[in-house]
Amino acid sequence: MNMNDLIIKKRDGGILDEEEIRYFVAGYTQGKIPDYQMSAMLMAIYFKGMNKEETCSLTVAMRDSGDIADLSSIEGVKVDKHSTGGVGDKMTLIAGPIAAACGVPVAKMSGRGLGFTGGTVDKLESVPGFQTTITEERFVELVNKHGIAVIGQTGEIAPADKKIYALRDVTGTVENISLITSSIMSKKLASGSDGIVLDVKFGDGAFMQTQEEAEELGNLMIEIGNAAGKKTVGLISSMNQPLGRAVGNSMEVIEAIDTLKGKGQGEKDLIDLGLNLAGLMLYAGDRASSLREGFDMAAEALRNGSALEKMRQLIEGQGGDPRVIEDRSLFPRPACKMEVRAPRTGVVTKLRAKTVGIASQHAGAGRMTKEESIDPTAGIYLVCKENCPVARGDVLAEVHGKDEAKVQAAAKILETAYEIGEQGGPEEPVVKTLIGV
Amino acid sequence: MNMNDLIIKKRDGGILDEEEIRYFVAGYTQGKIPDYQMSAMLMAIYFKGMNKEETCSLTVAMRDSGDIADLSSIEGVKVDKHSTGGVGDKMTLIAGPIAAACGVPVAKMSGRGLGFTGGTVDKLESVPGFQTTITEERFVELVNKHGIAVIGQTGEIAPADKKIYALRDVTGTVENISLITSSIMSKKLASGSDGIVLDVKFGDGAFMQTQEEAEELGNLMIEIGNAAGKKTVGLISSMNQPLGRAVGNSMEVIEAIDTLKGKGQGEKDLIDLGLNLAGLMLYAGDRASSLREGFDMAAEALRNGSALEKMRQLIEGQGGDPRVIEDRSLFPRPACKMEVRAPRTGVVTKLRAKTVGIASQHAGAGRMTKEESIDPTAGIYLVCKENCPVARGDVLAEVHGKDEAKVQAAAKILETAYEIGEQGGPEEPVVKTLIGV
Repeated sequence: MNMNDLIIKKRDGGILDEEEIRYFVAGYTQGKIPDYQMSAMLMAIYFKGMNKEETCSLTVAMRDSGDIADLSSIEGVKVDKHSTGGVGDKMTLIAGPIAAACGVPVAKMSGRGLGFTGGTVDKLESVPGFQTTITEERFVELVNKHGIAVIGQTGEIAPADKKIYALRDVTGTVENISLITSSIMSKKLASGSDGIVLDVKFGDGAFMQTQEEAEELGNLMIEIGNAAGKKTVGLISSMNQPLGRAVGNSMEVIEAIDTLKGKGQGEKDLIDLGLNLAGLMLYAGDRASSLREGFDMAAEALRNGSALEKMRQLIEGQGGDPRVIEDRSLFPRPACKMEVRAPRTGVVTKLRAKTVGIASQHAGAGRMTKEESIDPTAGIYLVCKENCPVARGDVLAEVHGKDEAKVQAAAKILETAYEIGEQGGPEEPVVKTLIGV
Repeated sequence: MNMNDLIIKKRDGGILDEEEIRYFVAGYTQGKIPDYQMSAMLMAIYFKGMNKEETCSLTVAMRDSGDIADLSSIEGVKVDKHSTGGVGDKMTLIAGPIAAACGVPVAKMSGRGLGFTGGTVDKLESVPGFQTTITEERFVELVNKHGIAVIGQTGEIAPADKKIYALRDVTGTVENISLITSSIMSKKLASGSDGIVLDVKFGDGAFMQTQEEAEELGNLMIEIGNAAGKKTVGLISSMNQPLGRAVGNSMEVIEAIDTLKGKGQGEKDLIDLGLNLAGLMLYAGDRASSLREGFDMAAEALRNGSALEKMRQLIEGQGGDPRVIEDRSLFPRPACKMEVRAPRTGVVTKLRAKTVGIASQHAGAGRMTKEESIDPTAGIYLVCKENCPVARGDVLAEVHGKDEAKVQAAAKILETAYEIGEQGGPEEPVVKTLIGV
């Protein structure tokens, strides 16, 4: 087999077979096929596309380029929830405990945040004492005991994706649905779970801009997941404004705990999305015989406090101080707080998720590069979200953090996230549609 | 400026301006832009094309990546003839002396052969004593004195083309008319002449397969040549079967001399093409006020022996033995000759130029790699060309060379160049149409 011939085949609209795709993914990962041939192939794929079979072969070849987690010693049907990434997305800390409370083992391998979206590992590490670098044995033991544990990514997951993504990023070949799908799904398929629940986001703070694009991507991801042998379902959700009111590590854990307390303290969007995702997890994990039953079970676990109890077990199990559930003052406290105020009277007509994410990152909650450390106290609390009426001088949001200069810089950015106009629009539901069910 | 942005611009169908094209050609040549970005750009160009302005900017930027010959100390309007490459193409040795005899200074910088097409420098070096590695001063002096001289390429001509071509060759991006045009014309524009005559070939032994493709390429080359400030004209010629009967270095010089002798000894295709190219050179070089006049002057120079005299001066001027013109036995003699015979009675319906070229190369007349030396005596004499009636056992062709094993291998290949059928087709004129006039 010859890479130049394969490039020409794709360039001329041909269909690459599984063997051909495995050849160039493996060859590229091992450094036998040079970057310049891979980038030409990626551009040919950009123009000619890949059908479902090709996309599936590509995804599986990328999955097989690295380690695949073995969770076989965990009992039950394991389900993994994956989000395509958003701002204020603390769903692993809401849907995860709910699903665990209903008997779905949640063995979550999670990443750290990079760019303007946070990572679950960073969030949990803001709980005093919480350890995410536990051994795999301990991880399995905890899931078998409590039904839930979160570990930082171990091993080398889909190195082909890492290498291909870095190349796409500098060769104008990011925006292709098959390449996007294979990049996301190759990692998800390596997670070792039996089922996958996808939260595919669209809007200002998401990779996909429109609902239509998100549905196209989501449906393809679901087809690939099922074709690769995992029961895969999901939903499309809006990421035009951030999820909930808290953006930043400890602030998001606090908000997740509040939501699990369920006493009307939780934000509507968090509860809606959390129950939908948990319901899908129960359905994919064969704990509910219908979606309806899954949603009802999830709502009951939230209502009766069993989900909050799972959160307590998660924290305690990994060395965290469980008293944080009752006493938020036990979280590290920000040295500095700053308010962003409304420049005029009116209604918040827009609250741009991406700008909020970038502001939070500048406050110290996120990393610009992988090596940076983060400030667990840094973040943003959105006092006003879209459709909120404001008078000139009202507090729109608070910025927290340990570094005054950074907090100040973040506040400056945050001002531009808000748009204030004459009147609001209709309330937008966060969950748009279920997919794959 | 950022290469990724430029790739995306072209990918999305944008028009690159001169500054942008210069940026990436210079950056790539200097190693500042990596291969993987260039190959993605080339693939985007493959799909989205380049308009005339872009193709011209690309060509000129590639020309400017290296040395440009300075022929200003040669008097008169200098015209360069360029062929897109074929088998048995000894036109520089026929049209060159004719044009020189009519007063057009022919200051030819020529390459060595690579692959199955020969180079003029290799051919002339088969004349005993002939030197092509003369100084530029001597070259200029010879052209001013005799009106004609041939030198091996000096300096580094269009290194951008060399680098880009090597990349295209392994990334499925060869077949694009703008890239082909810029590759050819960047080198031609660096040759230092005032006018350019293009011989654009199509058919079995040429890069372009059909006359239509050759015309499209030729017309674009002519537009680019004129836009870059050189009076550029040309013609489209057939390369389905080899030009003339001789393929190989000394054999081609002998055939060129025979043609210049003009006493009915020359092959019709060589005379036709030679007079047309020389006529175009006279027209482009302002020695003839019309094409008609140019062709008439060329025919007269052939008839009256003045073209042959220029050949003698060319040989003598560069240290060659001019007695070869009268006595071909002064050329090095092949140690080995072998005949290829007709396997059946019929008519030659096909004589594949490319196969003949490859056979000649195997006999020792060409190089597989740049470092190889060539055998000046090696080559093929085509006793029968297309439409020649043959009886079983008749000699179709002779293979010459110093190495018996190579000659034998070449004869084996040459057998497959011939197709013998029941009846021939109409006689195909070699010159199909003039372009740019």
